[in-house]
Amino acid sequence: MKKTLIVGTVAYDEIETPTESSGKILGGAGTYIGLSASLFDTQSSIISIVGGDFEKENLEMLNSKGINTDSIEIVPKGKTFYWKGKYHKDWNKRDTLSTQLNVLADFNPIVKDENKNAEIIVLGNLHPLVQNTVLDQLDTNKKCVILDTMNFWMDNALDELMKVIGRVDIIIINDEEALQLSGKNTLFAAAKEILSFGPSQIVIKKGEHGAMLFEDGEFFTVPAFPVEKVKDPTGAGDSFAGGFAGYLSQIDEIDFEGMKLAVVNGTVMASFCVEGFGTAVMKNLDKETVDNRLKEFKKYTRY
Amino acid sequence: MKKTLIVGTVAYDEIETPTESSGKILGGAGTYIGLSASLFDTQSSIISIVGGDFEKENLEMLNSKGINTDSIEIVPKGKTFYWKGKYHKDWNKRDTLSTQLNVLADFNPIVKDENKNAEIIVLGNLHPLVQNTVLDQLDTNKKCVILDTMNFWMDNALDELMKVIGRVDIIIINDEEALQLSGKNTLFAAAKEILSFGPSQIVIKKGEHGAMLFEDGEFFTVPAFPVEKVKDPTGAGDSFAGGFAGYLSQIDEIDFEGMKLAVVNGTVMASFCVEGFGTAVMKNLDKETVDNRLKEFKKYTRY
Repeated sequence: MKKTLIVGTVAYDEIETPTESSGKILGGAGTYIGLSASLFDTQSSIISIVGGDFEKENLEMLNSKGINTDSIEIVPKGKTFYWKGKYHKDWNKRDTLSTQLNVLADFNPIVKDENKNAEIIVLGNLHPLVQNTVLDQLDTNKKCVILDTMNFWMDNALDELMKVIGRVDIIIINDEEALQLSGKNTLFAAAKEILSFGPSQIVIKKGEHGAMLFEDGEFFTVPAFPVEKVKDPTGAGDSFAGGFAGYLSQIDEIDFEGMKLAVVNGTVMASFCVEGFGTAVMKNLDKETVDNRLKEFKKYTRY
Repeated sequence: MKKTLIVGTVAYDEIETPTESSGKILGGAGTYIGLSASLFDTQSSIISIVGGDFEKENLEMLNSKGINTDSIEIVPKGKTFYWKGKYHKDWNKRDTLSTQLNVLADFNPIVKDENKNAEIIVLGNLHPLVQNTVLDQLDTNKKCVILDTMNFWMDNALDELMKVIGRVDIIIINDEEALQLSGKNTLFAAAKEILSFGPSQIVIKKGEHGAMLFEDGEFFTVPAFPVEKVKDPTGAGDSFAGGFAGYLSQIDEIDFEGMKLAVVNGTVMASFCVEGFGTAVMKNLDKETVDNRLKEFKKYTRY
């Protein structure tokens, strides 16, 4: 069993869909990545920051999943990062209605000594400077560093982002972001270009259309698991990353065959996430349910 | 080896893409379906109509592929069906610049006696009344009838189209058309609804995002074969149908497992089609090239 170190937001979200409103609920990339990875045999820790308003029961819930929360700093006088967003009928479009950085504005992540030797590192979507700070503190022995990022940082902190990209093993981004980051107009050309920036592998997520995995000279593609009713896409990408990392932490040698399975596991974890509001499904999942869906996915895709 | 009877247009196309112009070239659903099916072990015939302007070498080319063209009626004083279209940067959008029905306006397809016992029937995209006329002439023994249609007929001849749909085994349409035809807003709900109209199976094509196959209680999904550079999407759907039908004509019993492979073969045939202008790639394909891509596709999708 490997150690997985997750760096990402632990937050409050408020989500509106065409038919429902969530109210203030637990969210954040770190939360989703952690919950998703917890379905795999791994020893995970989340590095994050929350305010005094953060309910203790949320930390207890994460602990109950075997997730170490000792590195989630609590700022008693601060407020937890808050995001409010609204989805349209077409789930691919969303508007951010409010972003309150709060304690996240002064987030200076500290990697505790016992986490410096983690084998799997997941850098959740955060300012690239923060992601870099984490990398600076890690032991330099053999690791697998997975980066998740988004177009916001390409628009606002490209130089810093490029530095992080040059230091990671695997980058996970969506199709539009891959085109933007590479300046190319096909996903193949984009993947090739982004691999030249440093990572050994790139995973391109295509939402309801599945995902692709590229390595120099290797390629793999899967459709998405067919979800009959999407309730809320929030956290799907993070759940993908958590499942991807969780699977990698289970296997001895991380080769292309293993990464293909990691993509499949990420795909299946994302499919659970979108079936409920916020973390509703993710926090109630068990291994048997995940295994059954993995079998079902195989049935749907094998010929 | 089964007999495959294809009903569809044999036409002249003129295609504009953001970078190139084709000039007047061979096209038509019947042509693409026939060329695609000719890569499989089948004995195929095309029922169609052309004008006196149709160049003989096109018929000879089809014959050289083992396609029987005796049922392509030639109207010496008429002109061949002509379509001109323009694609945008986003390949999913195209404008029709000109449609000249010409001899197609009076197309009254006759099924020759020797074709009445064909086991695989492909009704290419045509007016549903024409498709119905063909079904009226077939022997009633055990067959597999595959219908291809499009939104144009849903908009302009829905009642007639619904009659055809009630008479076929398999319907192949794209994602938007499935939503339109069913009035539903998810592909799952759409597939379920359309199966209730009569067909035993529905294939939903999603272009670059692959295809899905539905049967009551069964489901299968594949990504598209990753084409590095699309040159012209014209005929991709027809080539899919041709590969799908061609594969079915090779197997003894047409069950769900066989249909999954038919979808894979259709997917691969469509990927060749888009790599060249018009029929450029399709008319120069050989079985070895197809088999190699099928193997490559397996490599890209197996885990």
